[in-house]
Amino acid sequence: MSAPLTLNIGLCGFGTVGQGVWKHLSAHRADLETRLGVRLNLARASVRNLKKKRDVKIPARALTTDPLAIARDPSIHIVCELMGGTTLAREVTLAALKRGAVVVSANKALICEHGSEIIATAQKNGGHFFFEASVAGGIPIIKALREGLVANRFPRIYGILNGTCNYIHTQMEENDAPYAAVLAEAKRLGYAEADESLDVDGWDTAHKASVLAWLAHGVWVKTDQMIVEGISRITPADFKTAATLGFGIKLLAVITRDFAKNELCVRVHPTLLPEGNVVANVSGVFNAISVTGDVVGTTFYSGRGAGQDATASAVISDIADAASLLRHGKGGHLLGEITSAPRVTCRLAPPQNIRSRYYLRLTVKDQPGVLARVASVMAKQKVSIASVIQGPADQPGAASLVLTTHESNERAIGATLKQLKALAAVLDEPVLLRIGDFER
Amino acid sequence: MSAPLTLNIGLCGFGTVGQGVWKHLSAHRADLETRLGVRLNLARASVRNLKKKRDVKIPARALTTDPLAIARDPSIHIVCELMGGTTLAREVTLAALKRGAVVVSANKALICEHGSEIIATAQKNGGHFFFEASVAGGIPIIKALREGLVANRFPRIYGILNGTCNYIHTQMEENDAPYAAVLAEAKRLGYAEADESLDVDGWDTAHKASVLAWLAHGVWVKTDQMIVEGISRITPADFKTAATLGFGIKLLAVITRDFAKNELCVRVHPTLLPEGNVVANVSGVFNAISVTGDVVGTTFYSGRGAGQDATASAVISDIADAASLLRHGKGGHLLGEITSAPRVTCRLAPPQNIRSRYYLRLTVKDQPGVLARVASVMAKQKVSIASVIQGPADQPGAASLVLTTHESNERAIGATLKQLKALAAVLDEPVLLRIGDFER
Repeated sequence: MSAPLTLNIGLCGFGTVGQGVWKHLSAHRADLETRLGVRLNLARASVRNLKKKRDVKIPARALTTDPLAIARDPSIHIVCELMGGTTLAREVTLAALKRGAVVVSANKALICEHGSEIIATAQKNGGHFFFEASVAGGIPIIKALREGLVANRFPRIYGILNGTCNYIHTQMEENDAPYAAVLAEAKRLGYAEADESLDVDGWDTAHKASVLAWLAHGVWVKTDQMIVEGISRITPADFKTAATLGFGIKLLAVITRDFAKNELCVRVHPTLLPEGNVVANVSGVFNAISVTGDVVGTTFYSGRGAGQDATASAVISDIADAASLLRHGKGGHLLGEITSAPRVTCRLAPPQNIRSRYYLRLTVKDQPGVLARVASVMAKQKVSIASVIQGPADQPGAASLVLTTHESNERAIGATLKQLKALAAVLDEPVLLRIGDFER
Repeated sequence: MSAPLTLNIGLCGFGTVGQGVWKHLSAHRADLETRLGVRLNLARASVRNLKKKRDVKIPARALTTDPLAIARDPSIHIVCELMGGTTLAREVTLAALKRGAVVVSANKALICEHGSEIIATAQKNGGHFFFEASVAGGIPIIKALREGLVANRFPRIYGILNGTCNYIHTQMEENDAPYAAVLAEAKRLGYAEADESLDVDGWDTAHKASVLAWLAHGVWVKTDQMIVEGISRITPADFKTAATLGFGIKLLAVITRDFAKNELCVRVHPTLLPEGNVVANVSGVFNAISVTGDVVGTTFYSGRGAGQDATASAVISDIADAASLLRHGKGGHLLGEITSAPRVTCRLAPPQNIRSRYYLRLTVKDQPGVLARVASVMAKQKVSIASVIQGPADQPGAASLVLTTHESNERAIGATLKQLKALAAVLDEPVLLRIGDFER
């Protein structure tokens, strides 16, 4: 028997995730090497500051400040891009793929913005691109979609893809705590970034939705082609009102495909989910995904969506897939790696036509006749009211008016909002949430 | 470019699952062929009766009554064993593997009983054995364990692996219906077999637990090495009492590994799960699995555990994996196929040492002093009582006594049961359920 192949691994980025990969790969190396039939050599890692103290000790000679040097190093078989960002990360990814290496990525923003270029570069140069860690952390959802559920087409995929928002929602709901206070606490605990916009405004979820939509439908959808709405205007009172109506509130990515019309719709927004919905019951920093396939029916997945360990678990599974591939010569390709052959293409559904029930909260002057004027506007737009709950508002002299609608569409509800805002009795920007009637 | 490789597929068994595979593979063939880069040819199928009318039409020349002829046919690359049973199915499986073919199996009983021989035969002869459909139907749990979570060791895996039992439990709980009536209804609906023992006595769940234990720990555990208890003695009153105590009841497979002691424990029994537990909230014919890895933390999976479509989805994913493998020459092996290299072995934990809290229901004479006698027996065995609920029993002159215990072990509770049965005041065989304190 010949000596086993040694695969050299380079980590571009040696922060939380990079150190997690190094730590866990070192701890499980013997078992992995036995199962994979290769030697795994943690060869190089790039850092911004060579002198910084780190929890994970690695030899000084393995460190560099230049991630591109690792990407271009012909001795490195597997390049893990764990830096984040979309400029240097793009250069690193393309440089490694251009020499036919395997790139393992956790970078959803990069994939969303430059996925098409990355995949084309991989295919042209015999490189390979793996990205299990880019969506839903430790949940092996990428592998489930591209391999485990390969027999299916996907009319609907939706879920909680951002643990920070779910943590904030859970705290607001359970502790009746205002958004700003919970966000500050999340920052203190390290669950939210100093600049929270990527998380709370829905962009991170949108990047991940783009990755899932591509996997499931072979189409790149950019964030400016989606409805993307964040969570910053939701109040503890919204959670209470929603609960009264039998709903929880979650920030969801929703990817639906109408195969009859051949239309795809990708959107990200806070959503009212019926209390019995399994996604509605996933709380804290956990992620959850409901995948409906035309053959398998609905399957459901949850787990930690971020953090050093969960992300490292996903990165290492990609390294193992890469090892399995490289062991047999990298001319091959793994099941599910999208080939250059065109798949059936679909078009994006016009956002204005998306149908939903809606939850609408207005802060109005506390005086008689307001509900009549609101109802009249809605009637004019043919948006049918399903329920009305009036309650106190935070401002003196104001009342809160929560309306839910029967099924309508984005065009009608958009026109309704515009006219409502023009009413003198409506004091604040209305809060619009969508109701998710996904199951049954 | 050369013409794509054509892979011939033979289906041994053309009942519900076999016809599902044929139907869905035919419907999705173009897309699968594009993605896999091979042609997939449904070449042969074996049936018991050539003249039987079937929903799925296939050419008469493709049919045979001899599954071994398909297994031995050198032109068939992928043999799907979908017959069930452990005699002819074993012959078919071994015959195909001996000529180096790929076998795709949904047969958990076969794997549990003969897995060691099957894997050894595959390795010796360059054959491959895939079995995604053997556990949890359409949920890609095999792939998750062996590939997606490859970075992990697994201290705990537990879940609902038998949809029939979960359907029966759900009906009993929601409709306050007795076991026998629900079972009869399940048979009428086709959810339960004419001979229900395999399902309701826990054997089917035990077979699946054996498969998962092998995947996660590399050890073959036979059903006679497990605690295996069924659901037939649970009453609607048990569901009500459990709910009063804050629990649901589910038939679970529980696979725990103590890495410090290097001990593995595999067991199957009805289990009280706290109401908030996500597995406790999966109802009807659905399966659910909680997998705790040492790196990723706890991940959770649910979906349809049986039926034509869900099982076909899993079989087709194995066919796709096989195609990916064969395209690159079957000398290779896929990530996670267990090699002949020995993994760290562990021993089975002595069942007597398994620790748990317990739920104990006694039917006792409705007279004073009985609780004192029961409590005295338990005290003698050092089983500490946590709660007592007395209520009416079905029999006249009898009362129901439900006790829960603090943590104890199988040895102590076994001795307790023996002594309780000897009491004149205890009228029926006691019902013992275990309490699952799995999370947190």
